[in-house]
Amino acid sequence: MRSRKIRMGMVGGGPGSFIGRVHFNAAMLDGQIELVCGAFSSDPDKSREAGEGYYLNPERIYGSFQDMFEKEKLLPDGERMDFVCIATPNHVHFEPSKMALENGFHVVSDKPLTYTVEEAEILVKLVEKTGLFFAVTHAYSGYPMVKEARNIIQNNELGSIRKIIVEYPQGWLSLPLEQGDSKQASWRTDPKRSGKAGCMGDIGTHALNLAEYISGLRATEICADLSIFVENRKLDDDGNVLLRFDNGAKGILHASQISVGEENNLNIRIYGEKGSVKWIQQEPNTLIVNRLDKPIELRRSGNSYLSEIASYNTRLPFGHPEGLIEAFANIYRNLATSIQYKLMAKDIPEFAMDYPTVYDGLRGMKFIDKLIESNKSDYKWTKF
Amino acid sequence: MRSRKIRMGMVGGGPGSFIGRVHFNAAMLDGQIELVCGAFSSDPDKSREAGEGYYLNPERIYGSFQDMFEKEKLLPDGERMDFVCIATPNHVHFEPSKMALENGFHVVSDKPLTYTVEEAEILVKLVEKTGLFFAVTHAYSGYPMVKEARNIIQNNELGSIRKIIVEYPQGWLSLPLEQGDSKQASWRTDPKRSGKAGCMGDIGTHALNLAEYISGLRATEICADLSIFVENRKLDDDGNVLLRFDNGAKGILHASQISVGEENNLNIRIYGEKGSVKWIQQEPNTLIVNRLDKPIELRRSGNSYLSEIASYNTRLPFGHPEGLIEAFANIYRNLATSIQYKLMAKDIPEFAMDYPTVYDGLRGMKFIDKLIESNKSDYKWTKF
Amino acid sequence: MRSRKIRMGMVGGGPGSFIGRVHFNAAMLDGQIELVCGAFSSDPDKSREAGEGYYLNPERIYGSFQDMFEKEKLLPDGERMDFVCIATPNHVHFEPSKMALENGFHVVSDKPLTYTVEEAEILVKLVEKTGLFFAVTHAYSGYPMVKEARNIIQNNELGSIRKIIVEYPQGWLSLPLEQGDSKQASWRTDPKRSGKAGCMGDIGTHALNLAEYISGLRATEICADLSIFVENRKLDDDGNVLLRFDNGAKGILHASQISVGEENNLNIRIYGEKGSVKWIQQEPNTLIVNRLDKPIELRRSGNSYLSEIASYNTRLPFGHPEGLIEAFANIYRNLATSIQYKLMAKDIPEFAMDYPTVYDGLRGMKFIDKLIESNKSDYKWTKF
Amino acid sequence: MRSRKIRMGMVGGGPGSFIGRVHFNAAMLDGQIELVCGAFSSDPDKSREAGEGYYLNPERIYGSFQDMFEKEKLLPDGERMDFVCIATPNHVHFEPSKMALENGFHVVSDKPLTYTVEEAEILVKLVEKTGLFFAVTHAYSGYPMVKEARNIIQNNELGSIRKIIVEYPQGWLSLPLEQGDSKQASWRTDPKRSGKAGCMGDIGTHALNLAEYISGLRATEICADLSIFVENRKLDDDGNVLLRFDNGAKGILHASQISVGEENNLNIRIYGEKGSVKWIQQEPNTLIVNRLDKPIELRRSGNSYLSEIASYNTRLPFGHPEGLIEAFANIYRNLATSIQYKLMAKDIPEFAMDYPTVYDGLRGMKFIDKLIESNKSDYKWTKF
Repeated sequence: MRSRKIRMGMVGGGPGSFIGRVHFNAAMLDGQIELVCGAFSSDPDKSREAGEGYYLNPERIYGSFQDMFEKEKLLPDGERMDFVCIATPNHVHFEPSKMALENGFHVVSDKPLTYTVEEAEILVKLVEKTGLFFAVTHAYSGYPMVKEARNIIQNNELGSIRKIIVEYPQGWLSLPLEQGDSKQASWRTDPKRSGKAGCMGDIGTHALNLAEYISGLRATEICADLSIFVENRKLDDDGNVLLRFDNGAKGILHASQISVGEENNLNIRIYGEKGSVKWIQQEPNTLIVNRLDKPIELRRSGNSYLSEIASYNTRLPFGHPEGLIEAFANIYRNLATSIQYKLMAKDIPEFAMDYPTVYDGLRGMKFIDKLIESNKSDYKWTKF
Repeated sequence: MRSRKIRMGMVGGGPGSFIGRVHFNAAMLDGQIELVCGAFSSDPDKSREAGEGYYLNPERIYGSFQDMFEKEKLLPDGERMDFVCIATPNHVHFEPSKMALENGFHVVSDKPLTYTVEEAEILVKLVEKTGLFFAVTHAYSGYPMVKEARNIIQNNELGSIRKIIVEYPQGWLSLPLEQGDSKQASWRTDPKRSGKAGCMGDIGTHALNLAEYISGLRATEICADLSIFVENRKLDDDGNVLLRFDNGAKGILHASQISVGEENNLNIRIYGEKGSVKWIQQEPNTLIVNRLDKPIELRRSGNSYLSEIASYNTRLPFGHPEGLIEAFANIYRNLATSIQYKLMAKDIPEFAMDYPTVYDGLRGMKFIDKLIESNKSDYKWTKF
Repeated sequence: MRSRKIRMGMVGGGPGSFIGRVHFNAAMLDGQIELVCGAFSSDPDKSREAGEGYYLNPERIYGSFQDMFEKEKLLPDGERMDFVCIATPNHVHFEPSKMALENGFHVVSDKPLTYTVEEAEILVKLVEKTGLFFAVTHAYSGYPMVKEARNIIQNNELGSIRKIIVEYPQGWLSLPLEQGDSKQASWRTDPKRSGKAGCMGDIGTHALNLAEYISGLRATEICADLSIFVENRKLDDDGNVLLRFDNGAKGILHASQISVGEENNLNIRIYGEKGSVKWIQQEPNTLIVNRLDKPIELRRSGNSYLSEIASYNTRLPFGHPEGLIEAFANIYRNLATSIQYKLMAKDIPEFAMDYPTVYDGLRGMKFIDKLIESNKSDYKWTKF
Repeated sequence: MRSRKIRMGMVGGGPGSFIGRVHFNAAMLDGQIELVCGAFSSDPDKSREAGEGYYLNPERIYGSFQDMFEKEKLLPDGERMDFVCIATPNHVHFEPSKMALENGFHVVSDKPLTYTVEEAEILVKLVEKTGLFFAVTHAYSGYPMVKEARNIIQNNELGSIRKIIVEYPQGWLSLPLEQGDSKQASWRTDPKRSGKAGCMGDIGTHALNLAEYISGLRATEICADLSIFVENRKLDDDGNVLLRFDNGAKGILHASQISVGEENNLNIRIYGEKGSVKWIQQEPNTLIVNRLDKPIELRRSGNSYLSEIASYNTRLPFGHPEGLIEAFANIYRNLATSIQYKLMAKDIPEFAMDYPTVYDGLRGMKFIDKLIESNKSDYKWTKF
C-alpha cells in the first residue's frame, strides 16, 4: 500500500544542535523516511562532519541550502529528496522554506515559522500556490493524549468551554548563559536571530498552539506583561498573558525561561460547563478528565477505551511510556504518509493530515507581534 | 507555665454551617481552649439546638451576639469568655467584631474581615485603641510547610524573587446551586451578604494573603479580568489577575469557583534568582524546593531538617499527615497562647504572634475593592 | 440527643510521649469528650507536670493508674471518668486495661493489645463478661477512604479477591538510635517492654489489621522472613511475609523500620477479578479504584459520590485535607457515641460500633506469635 | 569515526507482533542501523507482507530463518547483514539464535533467552566460542535513570544494601483472553510456546534482572508462591517470591498478570544503610533518592548533575520525556557501536558494552527453573 520510503533532506542540525537531532530521530523512528542529503551548517566542514555522522553519501552533503536545492532538483525521480526538514535558528527558517517551495519540495520547518509576519504570509501564499505540504513542528500536539483531549472537546463532553489555563515554564535561562558559551542560549536571546520575542516566541507560541488545537477556540483579545529579568538580556525571558476567546471563554497563558526548577513544564487545563481536562507534557501518557460530581478519571495512553485518533498516534501498549520523540514522529509519519498518498495519486485520509501547518505557523508569528504590541500598550486589551 | 484554659464564645456556626464547625474543631484540638458560650444563630431555637450540641450550659446559649456580649461582660473574671470566634456569613462579621472589641473581648474572625473597607478601617482603629488581639482566619498560612516556605525566602535562599503564581481554583459553583437550596451557595453569591465580590472575595483574598505571607512582598499594581459564567449569578465566579510586586517581581493570581473537577486547589509557586518553592494545599505536608541545577527537593513536614517555625507548627512525626484543621488550630493555639501570656503579664513570644491579623483583613478588603476597580477599567494597571 | 460529654482518664502520655498526645488531640477534636483525670507517668512529678499541662484539677492527677482507678471508682456518677485511654509502652497495656475493666471503665488502648497472647485472651474474656466497650487504636482503619475501600469490597464491586499487597515501610530506626537517648527507640527495641517482636509488632500488626479490615478476609497461612539489620539490636527491624487468605487469595505483607527515606508509608493494594483498590496512608484523602478496561478512578474524600460510611467519617468538604488525628478521632467519636447511647439506654447504631476492638487486638497478638514461629521454621507455611 | 551503518535482519515481527515493532523502532531511532532482510513469519505470505511494510528488497524477504541465514551468509561483505534481531515467541528463540551464531552473525534476542536452561547453556558456549556479540533485551535496564541508580550504588552512596523490593504487576490477563482470539495471550499462556513459567517467565525475569543489574547483588535463595487464578489457564499468572541476596540483603519480588488496573508497573526500591533509591518504569525519567534525614531528592533525566553513564544514555534535554523505545534503542545503539568498533578493529569502549548479554539470559532461565522448584517445595528456601 505504501508506495516507497520518503526521502528527506535537512537544513541545519549540525554539531551542537539540539532540535536537529530530535527531528532526525523522529523522522527515522518508523522506518518510513530515509535521510538522503543535507546542508547541516553554513560552515562546509561542519556540514560534512555532520553528514558523515549520518552516514550520508558525501556527494549529497552540501555546503549551503541553496546548493542543496539546486542540486537535488536536478536529480532523477528515484533519487531526489521529497521534502526538507528545516532545523536552523529562527532567522534561517524563511529563506530555505521559501526556496524549498519554489523548487517543488515539501517542508517540515521548526517554529517559529519565520522572522516576521510578512515572511510568514509569503510562505502561506507559496503553499497555496504550489499545493505542497508544509508542516510546522508544534510537536506537543503530536502526543496521543493531547489528541484525546481534543477529541473529548470535539465530542462536546465538556459542554461550552469557560476557561483555559496554559503554562509553559522553563528555568534554563535563569542565569545569563548567553554571556557564556551556550550556543542555544546565544541565538535564542539575540533579536537578530530569534526575532521580536525571546521566551514568548520560543515557547509561548507552543502554548497558544496547544490551547487552540485542543480547544478548537481562537484567542481574540490579549493582555500581556512581558519581562526581562536577567540583566543585559535583550529579549523577554518571561511573560504573563490574559486571554479572551472567540466563544467568550477566558484564559491565562504564561511562559518563562527564568522559573528556576522548571524543566519543560508545558501544561494545560481546559474547563467547560460539564467537565475539564488536564494534561502535563512531562507526564504525557496520562490525561486527567473531570466531570461534575464524579471521581477524577485518569486516561492512559494505549488503552482500548481511548478515541481512534489517540490510538492511531500511539505505538506501544499501555504502561509502556512514549515520549517527545514519538510525538514528534507523529508529525513526520503523517507528513510522509500524505506524500505517499500523493505519490500514489490517492486521496489523503484525514488522519494523515493531522499535523500543524503553515497556517499554524503564521498564527504563531502574529501572536508574537500582538504580544509585543500589547506589552507596550497602556490599555488592557489588544485585539488579536 | 500556662495560666489556664482560654474561654471562647462563638457567633455563628449553627446548623448547616461548614466553617463554624471547622473553627470549633480547631479551637478544641489542643485542649487549650474551652467553649463556654455562643450565639450560634439569629434564630434562638437554632442557637439553642446548636449550643446543646456543644454541651453548653443553657444559660450561656444566647439568642443574639448583642445579648451575648452584654451578659458575658457582666460575668466574673473566672467565668467570662476571653475571646469570641466569628463564623457568620460575611455581612455579619463587622458588627460582632466591633462590639466584641468595644466590650473588651479578643476576636478570631473568619475572612473577609468586613463588608466594606470603611468597616475594616474602623476595626483596625479599635484594635489599635484597645490593644486587644484580633486574628483573621486566613488559615492556609497556618500550615507548617507554608511557614517553611516563608522561612526559606526570609533566609534569602531563593535570591531576589522574580515571579509568583498563585492559584485557587474550585469547581463547586459550576452549576447555579444558589437557585436551589444550598445555604453555602446562596449567601456566597448574594451581594447583600457576601460583599462586592464573590469568588474573589471568598477565595481570591486567601490567594493574595498566601502570596504576600510567604514572599514577604506586597502587590502594588493589578490587572483584573473577572467573570460571571453562570447565568443569573450576581457576583463573579472566576477571576484572572496579573500582578506586579513592590520589588519588581511579576505575578499571576487566578481563582475560580466554576473550574469543574477542582476541589480546593489552592497552590503557589514562587521563583527567585537562585531557586523556587512550590506548595499545594491539597497535599499540604510536602514543600517542593528547587535550586539551580540541583535535583528537586521534597521537604516533608515533621522532619528534623525543617526550620524551627515549621516544627513548632507541626504536631505529628513525619509521615503522619496533618490537614486543614491542624493548620486552623495553629491560629487558635497561637492566639490562645498570646492571651495566656497576657494574663500572666509576660512578653508575648514571637512564635505566638504568628497569625493573620486585622491588618491582613484590611488588606484583603482593599484587594476586593481594587479588583472591582481594575475589572471595570480599560487601562491595564490599577495601583494597589 | 447526646446525653452529655463523655469523661476520659489517661494512663501514660507524659513528657516525651508521641502517641499520648495524638490520643489526646483525637479525643478533644470533636468536643464530645473531656479529659478529667490521668496517671501520665510512673514518676509522680512527671505525672503532675503533664496533668497541669492538660489544665487538670490537681486532685485528679494521679501518681499511678492503680491509684486512679481506685479513686475514680469512688467518685459520684456526675464526676467519675467514663473510660480510660491507655497510651503507655506495650508492656504496660495489660495491667491498666484489666484493672479498668474490673472497675467498670470502658477502655481505649493503644496497640499491641498486651505483651502476650494469654493476657490478650484474659482481656477478651473480661470484655465479654463485663459488657464494657474496648477499642484498640488501629487508627488507620479510621480514615474515610479506608472505609470507602471496605465498602467497595463489601458491595462486591471487585469480584472475588485474588491478591493483597500491604506494605508498612519506615526508616526511622536505620541507625541504632536505641543506643542513644531516643525514648521512642529505646522501648520499642527492648524485648522487655515491646514484646516478642519489634517492627512486626509495632507496625506489622497495623498492616495485617488494615488488610483484613478492608478485604473482610482472614489470613490463614503465613511464611515469614524477619531480620535484624542494625547491629546489637534485639528485635526484628524488618520483615517480609507471604500470606494466604481464607478465600484462596494470595498476599504479601512487609514492614520495615530500616527502609531509609520511608516515613510512615503504610499502603495497600487489593486486586479482585473485576477491579482493584489502592490506598496510601501518606495521601489518605485519595482512593485509587481500577476496573477492567476503564480509566483509573480517583475517589476523593468529601465528595457526594462516596458511600455513607465514608461520608460519616469525614469532617471537611472535598479538597480540605484531613489527616491522622481525624482518623484517630473517628475511633474516639464512635466509642464516645456508643457510651452516650448506652447512658441513654438506647440501641447502639451500627456506625457507632465501627472501631477496632479487643478481638482485633487479640488477633494482632496471635499474628506476632505466628510470625515468630514461622520465622524460625524451615517449612514454608505456618498455619495462622 | 563510525565505520558504516550496521545491517540488521529480523526473525519474527510479522503482523500482530507487538515486540517486533518495538525492536524495529528501537533499531531505527538513531539512524545507525538499517534493516536489510527478514524472515518475519513462518507463513511466507505473511513474511512477504511484513517485509514490504518495511520497504525491503523483495529478494531479501525470506520464508524462514533457516533460509535467511543460508542466503545472507553467501552475500558479499558490503551487503550481508551484520546481526539478527529475534522477536519470535519464546519457543522460537533458541533455534535462530544458535543458527545465527553458527553462521557468524551477532544476535539481539528477546527474552527469555530460550525454552530450557540446557538450550541457554548451549548458546553461552557458542558465544564464548565464536566471540560474537549477543544482546538480550531486558530493555528496562536501558533507561538512563536505571543506570543512574546503578551508578549511585556502585559509588557506595547508599552504604551496604539491606533490602530490595521489585514489583512487576500487570492486569492484562485478568480474563481468560487466551480462550478468545488474542495472539499475545494465546502463546504466552501455552506451555509449549512459552516455557515452564507464564507470568514469571514473561515478566518476573525482567524484575530479577533489574534488581541484580541495579544492585550488583545476586539472589542466592528464593521462596516462591506461584498461582494460577484464571480458570483453565495452564501457566502461572501471578507469583510472590521472598529473596535472599549474596551480601545478606533481603528482598521481595512479585509479578502478576491478573492485577486489574495495573498496566506495566515495573518498579524497584533498594534500601541501603545510608540511603535508598526508587524507580518506577511508568514514570521513567525520575529517580527518587533518599538519604538519612535529608529531604527527598528527585533526579530527573537530562540534567547536568547526573552521572556520565546516565547522560550517555539520554537523547533529550531535561523535561523532554523519553520512553521505552529510547531505552530499547540504547541496547541497539550499544550493540551497533560495538560492532562498528569491531569492524574498525578497535577496542570496544566500556559504555558500548553496557547491555544485557547471553549470561543475563541464562540467569533468567535458571531463575524460571528455580521458581518452579521452590513453588513445589514444602521447604521455605530453595538455593539459587
